Amino acid sequence: MPLSITSTQNPKIKQLLALQQKSSERRKSGLFVVEGRRELEHCIAVGYEISSVFALEEALTSSIKHLPSDIYTVSPNVYERIAYRGSTEGIIAVVRAKNHSLATLPASPSPLYIILESVEKPGNLGAVLRSADAAGATAVIVCDPLTDLYNPNLIRASIGACFTVPMVACTSEECITFLKANGVKILTAQLQDSKLYYDTDMTGPTAIVMGTEATGLTDLWRDAADAHIRIPMLGRLDSLNVSVSAAILLFEAVRQRGAETLR
Amino acid sequence: MPLSITSTQNPKIKQLLALQQKSSERRKSGLFVVEGRRELEHCIAVGYEISSVFALEEALTSSIKHLPSDIYTVSPNVYERIAYRGSTEGIIAVVRAKNHSLATLPASPSPLYIILESVEKPGNLGAVLRSADAAGATAVIVCDPLTDLYNPNLIRASIGACFTVPMVACTSEECITFLKANGVKILTAQLQDSKLYYDTDMTGPTAIVMGTEATGLTDLWRDAADAHIRIPMLGRLDSLNVSVSAAILLFEAVRQRGAETLR
Repeated sequence: MPLSITSTQNPKIKQLLALQQKSSERRKSGLFVVEGRRELEHCIAVGYEISSVFALEEALTSSIKHLPSDIYTVSPNVYERIAYRGSTEGIIAVVRAKNHSLATLPASPSPLYIILESVEKPGNLGAVLRSADAAGATAVIVCDPLTDLYNPNLIRASIGACFTVPMVACTSEECITFLKANGVKILTAQLQDSKLYYDTDMTGPTAIVMGTEATGLTDLWRDAADAHIRIPMLGRLDSLNVSVSAAILLFEAVRQRGAETLR
Repeated sequence: MPLSITSTQNPKIKQLLALQQKSSERRKSGLFVVEGRRELEHCIAVGYEISSVFALEEALTSSIKHLPSDIYTVSPNVYERIAYRGSTEGIIAVVRAKNHSLATLPASPSPLYIILESVEKPGNLGAVLRSADAAGATAVIVCDPLTDLYNPNLIRASIGACFTVPMVACTSEECITFLKANGVKILTAQLQDSKLYYDTDMTGPTAIVMGTEATGLTDLWRDAADAHIRIPMLGRLDSLNVSVSAAILLFEAVRQRGAETLR
């Protein structure tokens, strides 16, 4: 029988709220919060350790009940307090973070990385992860991040891609050293001194590097680049969302490589 | 001297709030609300008629002051009441809607249309418009829309592309008749019975048609199609945001046509 929680003052509930709201709490504990059945399923499928589950009684399916985790049923008033988003799937879990690093990335004969420098908005990073999942990217590498990788807005915007796509945080220097050592071609997305992205070969090991929407890439990356690439802007606004730009560039690599090769 | 408004009960302010909140009010009056300096500038640049402007005194630049519109300065408490989004640029305008129709779309030797069937979320439509602007699309056509085209969330998500890209609402039947009569190739985005989008010729007059994320396209469109196309999904999630999918497909047309041709 799962234990039942009916008070929002329960210490377990207080810890969960702290994990949702504070990146310092996530860092300290190595735990983060996942909301929604689909997201939790992705988490389980790729081997995350589920520490505890808080669910409305009617949402507690037998597959969840048999997880090797602490399982709690919560009353509707408690669920309402801990639910981060409007939809009420009735399941929230506390999950142990994985420590991804450049050294533990999956090997690939011809990796395709998307690299973001100093991304600020968790929602943007989440959306990039979703694009990266669809394009079968090897990993998303976040350099000098200003957000932590288990921010609730990131998880939500990624609709679970933060679990399915390997994600590494490191410094720009570490990343450049890694790419050079592994013979990965560095393509920086920038307007100045660049050629059209579809005139650029992406069939070999490739890293596509993008800066922030506001300030673009630092000189460190521009200087490290093997080629500078741009998406032609044919409208009046000169502006694409970073996840849209990432998808356009990644799918050009898919086109050049042939979709079947990447599967 | 602009008139000054200091009460949230002022009838002009009440009308503005009604226009923000109710699509019925927008339909009835033929007016809608634009917030932010950049958005207003796009509006003016493409010839929208600005009915009235409500601005904080410090935001009232001389270019705004000389618009042939009713100009009001509003006190901070009034601005706070009418501001739709967090950032406070201090300018909100009431603008006359344009009645776009298929018949008045700009002529093009090789048009590139993006067509959305029954789009539900105004934010998604706005994001598609942003992608369409960047790719230099001829127009965005919304068939059987479930949202009105001047919804505040749409305007915001488009960051002004709803003004720079011609946008038409009509029925699917009207749209198909228009496309067939003008020799436009209809490419429907769908998984079943489809070929890879980049193996499809998009150099001639082309319409890319997309359904909702939930239910896809109706048989009406599938049957009317000259070709069915799909974006290969190489990840675990089988899901792309509609504005991302639109951008991938539109920029494949840009690639095939050569960016310079479209400018």
